[in-house]
Amino acid sequence: MAVSSQNRQKIAIVGASGYTGVELLRILKLHPGVDVTVVTSRQYEGTRVEDLFPSLHGYETLRFSAPDVDMICNNADLVFTAVPHQTAMAVVPQFIEAGLKVVDLSADFRIRSREVYEAWYQEHSAPELLGQAVYGLPELYRSRITSSRLAANPGCYPTSSILPLVPLLKKGMVRPEGIIIDSKSGTSGAGRGTSVATLFCEVNEGFKAYKVGEHRHTPEIEQELSSAAETQIKINFTPHLVPMNRGILSTIYCNLADPGTSTSDIINTLTQFYKDAPFVRVLPEGVFPNVSSVRGSNYCDIGVKVDARTGRLILVSVIDNLVKGASGQAVQNMNLMCGFEETLALEAAAVYP
Amino acid sequence: MAVSSQNRQKIAIVGASGYTGVELLRILKLHPGVDVTVVTSRQYEGTRVEDLFPSLHGYETLRFSAPDVDMICNNADLVFTAVPHQTAMAVVPQFIEAGLKVVDLSADFRIRSREVYEAWYQEHSAPELLGQAVYGLPELYRSRITSSRLAANPGCYPTSSILPLVPLLKKGMVRPEGIIIDSKSGTSGAGRGTSVATLFCEVNEGFKAYKVGEHRHTPEIEQELSSAAETQIKINFTPHLVPMNRGILSTIYCNLADPGTSTSDIINTLTQFYKDAPFVRVLPEGVFPNVSSVRGSNYCDIGVKVDARTGRLILVSVIDNLVKGASGQAVQNMNLMCGFEETLALEAAAVYP
Amino acid sequence: MAVSSQNRQKIAIVGASGYTGVELLRILKLHPGVDVTVVTSRQYEGTRVEDLFPSLHGYETLRFSAPDVDMICNNADLVFTAVPHQTAMAVVPQFIEAGLKVVDLSADFRIRSREVYEAWYQEHSAPELLGQAVYGLPELYRSRITSSRLAANPGCYPTSSILPLVPLLKKGMVRPEGIIIDSKSGTSGAGRGTSVATLFCEVNEGFKAYKVGEHRHTPEIEQELSSAAETQIKINFTPHLVPMNRGILSTIYCNLADPGTSTSDIINTLTQFYKDAPFVRVLPEGVFPNVSSVRGSNYCDIGVKVDARTGRLILVSVIDNLVKGASGQAVQNMNLMCGFEETLALEAAAVYP
Amino acid sequence: MAVSSQNRQKIAIVGASGYTGVELLRILKLHPGVDVTVVTSRQYEGTRVEDLFPSLHGYETLRFSAPDVDMICNNADLVFTAVPHQTAMAVVPQFIEAGLKVVDLSADFRIRSREVYEAWYQEHSAPELLGQAVYGLPELYRSRITSSRLAANPGCYPTSSILPLVPLLKKGMVRPEGIIIDSKSGTSGAGRGTSVATLFCEVNEGFKAYKVGEHRHTPEIEQELSSAAETQIKINFTPHLVPMNRGILSTIYCNLADPGTSTSDIINTLTQFYKDAPFVRVLPEGVFPNVSSVRGSNYCDIGVKVDARTGRLILVSVIDNLVKGASGQAVQNMNLMCGFEETLALEAAAVYP
Repeated sequence: MAVSSQNRQKIAIVGASGYTGVELLRILKLHPGVDVTVVTSRQYEGTRVEDLFPSLHGYETLRFSAPDVDMICNNADLVFTAVPHQTAMAVVPQFIEAGLKVVDLSADFRIRSREVYEAWYQEHSAPELLGQAVYGLPELYRSRITSSRLAANPGCYPTSSILPLVPLLKKGMVRPEGIIIDSKSGTSGAGRGTSVATLFCEVNEGFKAYKVGEHRHTPEIEQELSSAAETQIKINFTPHLVPMNRGILSTIYCNLADPGTSTSDIINTLTQFYKDAPFVRVLPEGVFPNVSSVRGSNYCDIGVKVDARTGRLILVSVIDNLVKGASGQAVQNMNLMCGFEETLALEAAAVYP
Repeated sequence: MAVSSQNRQKIAIVGASGYTGVELLRILKLHPGVDVTVVTSRQYEGTRVEDLFPSLHGYETLRFSAPDVDMICNNADLVFTAVPHQTAMAVVPQFIEAGLKVVDLSADFRIRSREVYEAWYQEHSAPELLGQAVYGLPELYRSRITSSRLAANPGCYPTSSILPLVPLLKKGMVRPEGIIIDSKSGTSGAGRGTSVATLFCEVNEGFKAYKVGEHRHTPEIEQELSSAAETQIKINFTPHLVPMNRGILSTIYCNLADPGTSTSDIINTLTQFYKDAPFVRVLPEGVFPNVSSVRGSNYCDIGVKVDARTGRLILVSVIDNLVKGASGQAVQNMNLMCGFEETLALEAAAVYP
Repeated sequence: MAVSSQNRQKIAIVGASGYTGVELLRILKLHPGVDVTVVTSRQYEGTRVEDLFPSLHGYETLRFSAPDVDMICNNADLVFTAVPHQTAMAVVPQFIEAGLKVVDLSADFRIRSREVYEAWYQEHSAPELLGQAVYGLPELYRSRITSSRLAANPGCYPTSSILPLVPLLKKGMVRPEGIIIDSKSGTSGAGRGTSVATLFCEVNEGFKAYKVGEHRHTPEIEQELSSAAETQIKINFTPHLVPMNRGILSTIYCNLADPGTSTSDIINTLTQFYKDAPFVRVLPEGVFPNVSSVRGSNYCDIGVKVDARTGRLILVSVIDNLVKGASGQAVQNMNLMCGFEETLALEAAAVYP
Repeated sequence: MAVSSQNRQKIAIVGASGYTGVELLRILKLHPGVDVTVVTSRQYEGTRVEDLFPSLHGYETLRFSAPDVDMICNNADLVFTAVPHQTAMAVVPQFIEAGLKVVDLSADFRIRSREVYEAWYQEHSAPELLGQAVYGLPELYRSRITSSRLAANPGCYPTSSILPLVPLLKKGMVRPEGIIIDSKSGTSGAGRGTSVATLFCEVNEGFKAYKVGEHRHTPEIEQELSSAAETQIKINFTPHLVPMNRGILSTIYCNLADPGTSTSDIINTLTQFYKDAPFVRVLPEGVFPNVSSVRGSNYCDIGVKVDARTGRLILVSVIDNLVKGASGQAVQNMNLMCGFEETLALEAAAVYP
């Protein structure tokens, strides 16, 4: 796609020294319509981006700077905030106020209900923006994102959980009660901060569940499922840590509304719902996805099985947690918000093997 | 423990060139009461065991021989059959007939109902032995195993699933309907045969579900759960492949019979049930197991969480699929059947990191 | 870069079901100037490419066909032969004869001396082409490749070995005798064929040397080093297998011609030599490369250390064996042979983490 | 082996919360002649050992205590000091003074020359003990260790390097100049401290050289090689980081003194030298070792190749860096120093796969 020079966008990344930051830089390197002008990191202020991340061939002159709202506002049209929750809500209002567009990768603007947010996180310091923010899942909210100034980029687990379930809940094919989401994530989801628990020798050749029944992505998933079903949904959600760098696979168990529903009925419904979604692929009957098929790419693959013995539906979805689960989806939102083609810089096939 | 010389047992391993075979040899190397006299392998006939498996320091003179029932019967007191199902049922009757004890690691004698076996596998050629065989899970059937001549060593997934659930079903604390078992296994469970699907580059950095709703361990799990609950139980069981060599983690979702049951109620019940079981460890509230904590050992660790938001119980169990899920449990059965202490050669702590 | 429609090239891949085949398809998906018209595989004839390789989102209609030289000649301008040595020499002459351009990923046309080839491989059935073929290392032979019809794409180990050494041998900074190359490769180098040795459980948590002193890449490396030094060079070359999918790191030990040469002298020479090479990056003093910095990319990073204690020079180079070590370099050759910009479809940054 | 009750030894481990500490506890669990009475850790004072290390089934009552020399001296016969260099030299003299035996796993007493130690490390605060300490490599110094009170347990890289080379240097079969040691280590060698560089996502799917020409194990290796050759030896030593938990493989290049020496000459010399060493295994011609064959075990396997093309000898050795490279060797030293059989608690076969 040709990108006219008028539409060229200047991009800032706040909190660029983590894994979602370096992934944004990797993706944006191939984007013909943007220039990354500012990358901030308190810890690495002054360091060349390529010195910290030698994988980033092609950013010879870019250096991390300390976060400075004025400087960013003067040098960017759109900002990605790739900082922890609570930090995001402190800076996002200033960018919005200054007229920038924001794609926020934190959790701070994902939950529409201030009460729910505060029950799972902490006090919200910018509740006035909750109404303006759009949940940045383009497959569900494409048109609202296109006209939005603030996209709340979804969590990785929620992206993998919401995409397979929402079409079925909207159609009433799945019962709202009894949904169980058993998710497995690669270790990059834990970020680039240091801890004993994420040392190589602790993760490698290991496998564990964590935050059982307590993970903060739970209310985010429940919000979108409830919205689709038009009734309050509570789920069981269990995340697990997999000894691999990238990828999330969610195995979802739910009860069919009509016990006569077949696997192909579900596949047809999903296929129809996502017929215009360039990054969702519904697999044929009998085929189940592998995270290795989406590694490094922005795709979400979904497999389907109705278990006739128990009358239960099993959905299996995969994404790359750093791409469709974070930075790729953020660029997808940016594309929509800036008038680029939705798929720009996101067409790469997965890196396999 | 001193082992008197009269009780010294001669051991044969049929099908010793697979991963359960080499694991039996690893464990038995440290067993003071046995001599491995015969190891068979059609493919590697004549090869020194240490040449095929250089990890097995200490078996300098042992060589694989072609399987020969007479020779085995003349040279062994107990035989481990580590061959595929269908192959096992062809040879086990001859060993039993000849007066040997048998620990069968295949599925052929695990299912008490011939009809169920034949529905999930194929015709059974030795149905007369189904009544004699004991399901070799010592934590449930210790006394029967002790006096048995044929122990059907449980599957790896069933071991990890049955141990946490049976005490709760026996006590009526968990409802029989709606049990979901989401299991994740290391790749050694797929065996040492060649296939594209188990190549390093296919498994590494990948994660997938397989045989969704169709895995043959399903009826084995259902048999033991139904027996405990004294009612017919049907489960959803989904196995997944993890990029690690060893270990199974099962995440089990079930409905509480009494919504007032607490996490500590469940922990207390499990702890009480397994107070004399040397290899089952119930973890404290808030602690969940990691497969790395049982790597190379015969332990099963269990974590417990009642999710008050949904009234559902989540159990998380881990074993090493090659030890407690196969060869270690087989030696545990051997110990009981031969009058050794149950823990002999199985006391090793897990290899971490 | 805009690609004019007249220059659009039709591409065939012979032997497309291996890892270099799928990697060619991944890279070419983003190439604006080519259409992949034919992919052959005897084993998977009739199978949709995306069914075998679900990572390849975007090839909806392409199917594997049986190799048919006439059909290929009628439907392609350039063919990548991604088949084993000996198979390549049987088909390449026909493509050349029919006027196609060929990038051959096998070893069959890399060795200029028929005698050397036959000493390390077997009889050569198309020796008449040895003189026409260009060794397809663009950093050394760019202009000859541009006008060539047959590029012999270098081996992965040779690429990682030749790039750091040739400039120093040409300048006489390194002595020709005593060069030792200790290389470590990810497992995709072993291909997608099945074998016990490349099963996940055999490779994972393992590390080994193989073909010590006997690897067939030895004469290929020696040919290029000897050519640069203008004297016959013999090396010690030891390959090792690393439990990772992609990447080669070569640690190269050599003797300085002048003991006063410093690390920065070497860095300056390499930097100068590769100043117009878009894919070679010489690292600053004290920095050594990691294969993770080139994963999925076409770059070669080189680190340098003069060990003053011993007067020896140590060079450390990394590439992705499937990209710069195979399919990426093949596309780089194709770009040159077809008049595209050298970097087209190869600008992607490495996938990290 | 029966262990008489009089010889029962009380054991303290100072610095027990690292990987060498937990490995000592794993090994000693199966030792019939010792009781671990004290384990110290400032960071985890008061924590149950099994709560920090759930892999350690079987230490129900043991808790970490703050290091207290008096308390240790009152409760232990032998102490393992598993603390960093510099910390070790501050406490070891007190234990020796109090009459305890010490196996020191740090570098502080390995280097016999104070000058060399201080050139590579820092000032030595207990130089008076350097003369008393024995380099704790039983294959070379068995009798001296047996009568020693202070064994300086060798480094992991030195163990893998010294064992293959020393017999050949002693016999004069290898020339003292030009020795190159290219070593590759699993990540547990980096310890259990936190750092970005040892995070799972940084190590996994990566491979790098580090401390090129500067690693502190260099003088330790040179000391033992020089001693064997009776001349001053300088080596090139390059360590690399492998994405696996355990294991070191060293590829060693050296020049033959007599160009007519064959592979089998070398194998015979090594085999003869180690004929009474229970943990060294010299492999047959054409066979090279894999670290997976020694995982979790105390063995060192050595492969040999004379490369006739270049007249150079290549030796490949493997150990488990945490066992023969640290805690297993420490127990081997303890066995000798306390009058136990050398192999006690160390007979386990490797854990494969």
